[in-house]
This record gives sequence, C-alpha cells and structure tokens, in this order.
Amino acid sequence: MKIVVDAMGGDYAPIEIVKGAIEAAREFEIDIIFVGDEKKVKAELAKYDAGKLPVSVVHAPEVIEMGEPPAVALRKKKGSSIMIGTKLVIEGFGDAFVSAGNTGAVMGSSLLGFGRVKGIHRPAIASVFPTIKGFTMILDIGANAECDPQNLQQFAVMGNIYSSKILGVDEPKVGLLNIGEEETKGNPLYVEAFKLIKQSNLNFIGNIEGRDITGDVADVIVCDGFVGNVVLKFGEGLARDLMSMIKEELKKNIFVKIGAALVFSQAKGLRKKTDYAEYGGAPLLGVNGVCIICHGTSQARAVKNAIRVAKECVEINVVECIKKSIGERLNGDD
Amino acid sequence: MKIVVDAMGGDYAPIEIVKGAIEAAREFEIDIIFVGDEKKVKAELAKYDAGKLPVSVVHAPEVIEMGEPPAVALRKKKGSSIMIGTKLVIEGFGDAFVSAGNTGAVMGSSLLGFGRVKGIHRPAIASVFPTIKGFTMILDIGANAECDPQNLQQFAVMGNIYSSKILGVDEPKVGLLNIGEEETKGNPLYVEAFKLIKQSNLNFIGNIEGRDITGDVADVIVCDGFVGNVVLKFGEGLARDLMSMIKEELKKNIFVKIGAALVFSQAKGLRKKTDYAEYGGAPLLGVNGVCIICHGTSQARAVKNAIRVAKECVEINVVECIKKSIGERLNGDD
Repeated sequence: MKIVVDAMGGDYAPIEIVKGAIEAAREFEIDIIFVGDEKKVKAELAKYDAGKLPVSVVHAPEVIEMGEPPAVALRKKKGSSIMIGTKLVIEGFGDAFVSAGNTGAVMGSSLLGFGRVKGIHRPAIASVFPTIKGFTMILDIGANAECDPQNLQQFAVMGNIYSSKILGVDEPKVGLLNIGEEETKGNPLYVEAFKLIKQSNLNFIGNIEGRDITGDVADVIVCDGFVGNVVLKFGEGLARDLMSMIKEELKKNIFVKIGAALVFSQAKGLRKKTDYAEYGGAPLLGVNGVCIICHGTSQARAVKNAIRVAKECVEINVVECIKKSIGERLNGDD
Repeated sequence: MKIVVDAMGGDYAPIEIVKGAIEAAREFEIDIIFVGDEKKVKAELAKYDAGKLPVSVVHAPEVIEMGEPPAVALRKKKGSSIMIGTKLVIEGFGDAFVSAGNTGAVMGSSLLGFGRVKGIHRPAIASVFPTIKGFTMILDIGANAECDPQNLQQFAVMGNIYSSKILGVDEPKVGLLNIGEEETKGNPLYVEAFKLIKQSNLNFIGNIEGRDITGDVADVIVCDGFVGNVVLKFGEGLARDLMSMIKEELKKNIFVKIGAALVFSQAKGLRKKTDYAEYGGAPLLGVNGVCIICHGTSQARAVKNAIRVAKECVEINVVECIKKSIGERLNGDD
C-alpha cells in the first residue's frame, strides 16, 4: 500500500511530517510517497536511515500557506503539494492522501479531484474526540458552514460506517447535537434532521446536548460544520486554558508545587487520553478517495497516527462501505 | 428596592433558594418577595431569624416543572410562581424577578409580561463565562434557536451595555463567534452579522473562534442561541469530565494521592474562578423589565449572587440603557 504524504503542510513541516511518516513506514509496512520541495524533503530524509525504507519523493514547486483563501490558492497553485498529492492518488500512484496543510485547500482539492460518492451531497470532516471513558466521533467539524437536514442525515450514515468499521464500535450510538432532548427542540434544520435520521435504520439515540459530548453518551455525534467547528476549537481552547490555570494555581505554594510534580509525573494516562495526536487525523468522508486531514499543529506522532488511519481506511475500503450504506439506508439519489 | 424571587424554581427549591435570598437580604439591603407555596416557603423561613428581615411571601398555588414544555405550561398554569412572580414586577410590587426555574417558561413569561424594549426584535440570555484571566460574556445562550443578522447585531449592542455597565468593563471588546477570523468566514448569517456589527459603533474586534472563548480575547461574545447553548453546556460538561478524569488518575498511586490532596486544598482560587455560582444568574436582555435566570442547579450562593446582579441591573437601569443605546447605535425600528 502506498500513502501519499504532504511534506509541506502544517506548522511543523517538513521536519515533523517526515519524522512521523518515517516512523509509519517502519511500523506499518507501507510505502510513503512524500510530496513537496524535493531538496528540503531529502535533507530531512538524510537524518534517517531512510535508504532501506520504501519511501520516495515527488517534487512539488509550490506550497499553499495555512492562511491562504483555499479557492484562490487551488486555482493559482497547481504545483502545490496539496494539488499534486491529490493527483497522485487520483492517477493510481498512491492509495490515500494525508495532509496537515490548509484544511480548506485539502478539502477542496479532494472534493474536486476525487469527486463525491454517488448519493452523498456534501462530504464531511469527522474528528475523534476524547470522552470520560474513551472517545466519540463528531461530524461535521468544518467542511460545511451551512447544511440542510439531508446533509445531517448523510453525516449520520457516514459517521456510523466510520465508527463501526474503523474505530471498531459495535452498533454505534448515533446522537444529534441539539439544545434539548425532545424531538421538537432546536431550529428547523435540527427538527427536520431528527426526523430523517430516525428513519435511517441506525442506532439513533435522539438528541444529545453539549454537556453529553464528553460524557460517553453517543459514539457518533452529528452536527453542522459551523457548530462542530466551534465545539472542536472551544474544546481545545478550554482544555489548554484549564491546564494552564491549574498550573498557575500550583505555583503559589512550595508544598503544592511538590504535590503537583508528583501528580503530573503520573498523569500520563490522562494526557494520552486527551491528546489529539493519539487519534491521528480527521477523515474527509463522502469523497471517492481516502483523504486524512491533520491538525495544523500536528507533530510526528499525530502524523504517524494519521497515516495509520489512512491505511485502515484503505484496507477496509471505507469509500465502498459508504457507497453501499448510503444506498441501503437512504435510497440515496444524486 | 424589592426583588421578587421564585422560591419554587430549580433543582434545590425551595431550600437553597430561600437560603440564598435570605443571605442577599442580609447583605444587600434589599427587600425580598418570595413567590411560591406559602406553607413550604414559610417552613424554610422558620429556619432563619427572618422576622427581622424585610422578606414577605406571596402564595402561588402552582409550579412549572423543569421539564415541562414552556408554552403549554404558561397557558395552563396562570397560578405558577413564574407567572405570578413576573406579574408582581409588572404591577410595580417588585423591581426585578429572579428565578432558577424552567428557563423557557421564565423567558416566555417575561417576554409576554414585560414586552420587548422598543427596537429590540428578540431578547437574548447572556451568561458570564470564566476565562484564563477573568471572565467574558456570551450571548445568546439559548433564547433564540434561530436568528437573523440583525438579531446578532442587537445582541452585540446589548452585550456591550451589560458588560460596561454591570460588569464594569471599560470599552468592552466585542467579538463575533465564527469558524475563522476573516470577514468572509462562516455561513451567510454570520457574514451578514459581521457587516452589521461593524457599523454599530462598538469596540468590535471582528470574528473570534472557539479556541478564543476562554482565552480572554473578547469581553462580549456574540452568537446565535443554538451555538451559544451548545457551547455553554459543552463547557460545563467538559470541565466536569476533565476534573473527574483528573481525580480518577490521581487515585492510582498513593504518593500522587498525597500530592493531589496538597494541590486540591490550595486550589480554591481556581475553583472560585471556574464556578458558575460566583457570577450569579444570566440576565434576559431586551425585555422591558429586569429578569435574571439562574441555572437549574443553583444553590444558595448562586441565588444570592443572582439577586445581587438583579439589584445592580435595577440600580443602573439596564433597561433604559439598552433602550437608549439601541436608538443611538442602530437607529432601531420596531
């Protein structure tokens, strides 16, 4: 299996990207095709005993920066690592594309390049999220700032597939993120989506609320991309700020400081649990190809795990699973 | 000044409500009018040396339960503590209404009873939220599951007034909660709201993202009630679950347990910082009267602080401030 990796994407490219991908090549028995500035990538590769590994480099003369407006960038930068990486997969040189680059650009490039799965109106980005007992999955986290009820229904079906096939959850509990439990709660989008998801032959547990997200109530949490993006980023910010507030308090007393050192030295399990990097990247579901989008701050471990996720998506043929499921559960039209 | 308090609202009514209101009567030099089951309220009052305090009880034969559909409850239960409490303020027997009861019913009763401030299309519930350095305010947190751009603009104006007049923030930084910083980010509702808020003569800092909520970036955070409600409840759930995860980890080792005891015994400042009860209730802004909605789980301290907030809203005449500001800043029509 060949995984195409955008060597230029993210805040720590190419150093951490190459490092993570090398680790993946060693551990997962896969080939890695790096796409990016050949000179820079090869300089990184020189740090490792990469000669023995199945890695290659395809030169891409351009880079789409993190802050660039995606639509413009995709039009102008045909030679970008994102565009060339996607193309390599489309043309059969690779099986999946992994990038920590500009999310909008990766999404746009995949959507244009791979096309949508027949029956799917809008692809969605799905992210794994830690809960009190394990993890849940939330989608969409930002591909669609505006949705219709049918989009949300399709997100539910795609989330169900991903949760069961890739995350190994048996009969995933699917919840609709809303502002109350009753069927009539929320705005018209969510009231209508509730009805559609209910008819979709899923293990639908109904509406869940914000406080249930980390409470291990649902395995798949469905929402529009605006709400999902705010929630995801808020969670990141809150966890960051809570930890920083705790540390600040701990500094105030020497005995407490000693106690804190004891506590933090042991809290590895927790750190692992709440660490984004453990879950790898977020798949773009609903396109005719495997595309894993990593967080812009991804370092080696996150990249390695994203490549693992990509490998699993190819092995399980997640695209075919979605295609089949959308037909069975929704009588999807196009 | 007379504050009307719903003695029957919330999970800990009437015990904690009465306790908190008695404390408020002692500290704030205000009269308290309890509304609720006279016998039950008087039984609670008997626990305190309340004879010397300016408290009275108005009997309300009915209670709207926390889970009841608000519209139906308000129609059927004219004798509920919420309906009678609101009426007392409308008829001039009290200056403000405080309730930890069914949020939808309190809101509906206030909206119908007080009416909207001229020029305000939709009232909003504003909640104070802890940040890394202090606090911010977010509105709407659930009064409006669906909004138009003008609603969001008006929330910005009302939030600005509340932040400066009640929370004492000098020239509050107003941010629009969105999924990216650029002016063009988000869905049409937010793109349009951005333009309107920009024209509103506020200290508008533009779009902020989920990760900025607790980051002390904005003093007033504007969003629709669907997003605000999800964020608020998610924050509560995440803080609850993170603390519980931390405690679970700490149990695993005796030395860590000792360290943890040292840490937690000193972390009062943090607890105070992140404690909802410190900030009292959430004002319903945009109605012609002062109505403070408390969390359903409010205990004595939260109730006391909500009464303090009510008192301050009356002193500052927040209704008049909003009326004036909406005229000046928006050329508000009705």
